[in-house]
Amino acid sequence: MIDGFSVHAVRGIPDVQPGDDLAKLIVGAAPWLADGDILVVTSKIVSKSEGALASVPVGGPEREAAREQVLRSQTARAVATRGHTRIVQTHHGFVMASAGIDNSNVDRSQLVLLPVDPDASARALREALRERYGLDVAVIVSDTMGRPWRNGLTDVALGCAGIEPLRDHRGETDPYGNELQITQMAVVDELAAAAELVKGKVDRVPVAVVRGLLTSTRDSGGVVPTLVRDAEHDLFSLGTAEAREQGRAEALGQA
Amino acid sequence: MIDGFSVHAVRGIPDVQPGDDLAKLIVGAAPWLADGDILVVTSKIVSKSEGALASVPVGGPEREAAREQVLRSQTARAVATRGHTRIVQTHHGFVMASAGIDNSNVDRSQLVLLPVDPDASARALREALRERYGLDVAVIVSDTMGRPWRNGLTDVALGCAGIEPLRDHRGETDPYGNELQITQMAVVDELAAAAELVKGKVDRVPVAVVRGLLTSTRDSGGVVPTLVRDAEHDLFSLGTAEAREQGRAEALGQA
Repeated sequence: MIDGFSVHAVRGIPDVQPGDDLAKLIVGAAPWLADGDILVVTSKIVSKSEGALASVPVGGPEREAAREQVLRSQTARAVATRGHTRIVQTHHGFVMASAGIDNSNVDRSQLVLLPVDPDASARALREALRERYGLDVAVIVSDTMGRPWRNGLTDVALGCAGIEPLRDHRGETDPYGNELQITQMAVVDELAAAAELVKGKVDRVPVAVVRGLLTSTRDSGGVVPTLVRDAEHDLFSLGTAEAREQGRAEALGQA
Repeated sequence: MIDGFSVHAVRGIPDVQPGDDLAKLIVGAAPWLADGDILVVTSKIVSKSEGALASVPVGGPEREAAREQVLRSQTARAVATRGHTRIVQTHHGFVMASAGIDNSNVDRSQLVLLPVDPDASARALREALRERYGLDVAVIVSDTMGRPWRNGLTDVALGCAGIEPLRDHRGETDPYGNELQITQMAVVDELAAAAELVKGKVDRVPVAVVRGLLTSTRDSGGVVPTLVRDAEHDLFSLGTAEAREQGRAEALGQA
């Protein structure tokens, strides 16, 4: 009736273990998958299937010390610290609380790390679905992040394959002949956000499918080379000491 | 077949003028609107209908000077400056490039400002649809924003009515008995992002409808009191001078 797209929860994926075959688990839970679908996969199950885990003591000060060491291993640069929470830049370039390390939906003796190369993870899943199931889909690996200046978290893309991360409006003009000020939309982040709306945190819905938006998939640059802002590019300062304090305070707000 | 939701473009809304009746225009273009739908409305048409516009010369240094004055009127606090682009905090508390002032999709003699009170705008539209058309819908007023640390822009909510801005997971535990680390999801921002995927920038699709996600609407706190982070709350700094520089540099990256 109306042009648009739909977002569907994929239920029935079992608890993922290291070595598990994600393509098989997903096709098993979503036998209705079709060409042109966009698969949004929570990074946690990608990490678990890839064994991106760290073993830690289940409690006590030993747990804290081990966690601290794991955090250090995942950190390229500290951005801000608030109490126990660190906002850091990971080796991929993502700026996240605790480097994206997570202890939910996993046994207490383990911490889930981010996938080592989420774009490669997305490509591998896309390839597996193409080669073994004849499915031509795009894949987004997503995770939950805070942002400065706003409360609440949203899901964003850590990796993608088969879809361009950005939609570029450069050179377009509106019906009044004005050149567009807004040039590049982070489409894969918007897709990750849309998918989160059906992916409960405790309901074991780690995958959602977006249908009706892509006319065809295409190989593309991944998230890390495209969406992660080059820190060097940002590293100049023109403002007041007060503004610098504020910028830092805002980063802290991410916790 | 699968549980989820759908997002639909609303086409055929004419160029909006000050004083225009948005409820009427939207119902005219989307006679299929139904109870429980979430209407995501680009702030620009809200601003235009409310007359939140500033008249400026169509060119020359006079235009720049006038624009500068308009920007000052919309600015509560400067956050960062990069060349011609200022990242500022608006009187609502939003941190945005150019205070959200926009010159696209409007005659060159005008600049579009943000709605004065986007939560009130959302409530007014929700009320108009309820009273005059018997429709019980939620409304989100959205706009496009940059964010530090990531390239590309996404749509977020400036105002809402009939829906809670945050989904709260506090106190929930996962199947392993771990308490959730991620507590509050900015649902209205995720909805704004989902809607952007069908709202072209130059295609005159200023409204999208999200269907199938809400079981019922409810009066709620708006975006400004809920999602805008209290600057005072963020205003402490524990880090190094280098981290402060970085925080500010990241803010600049929003341009």
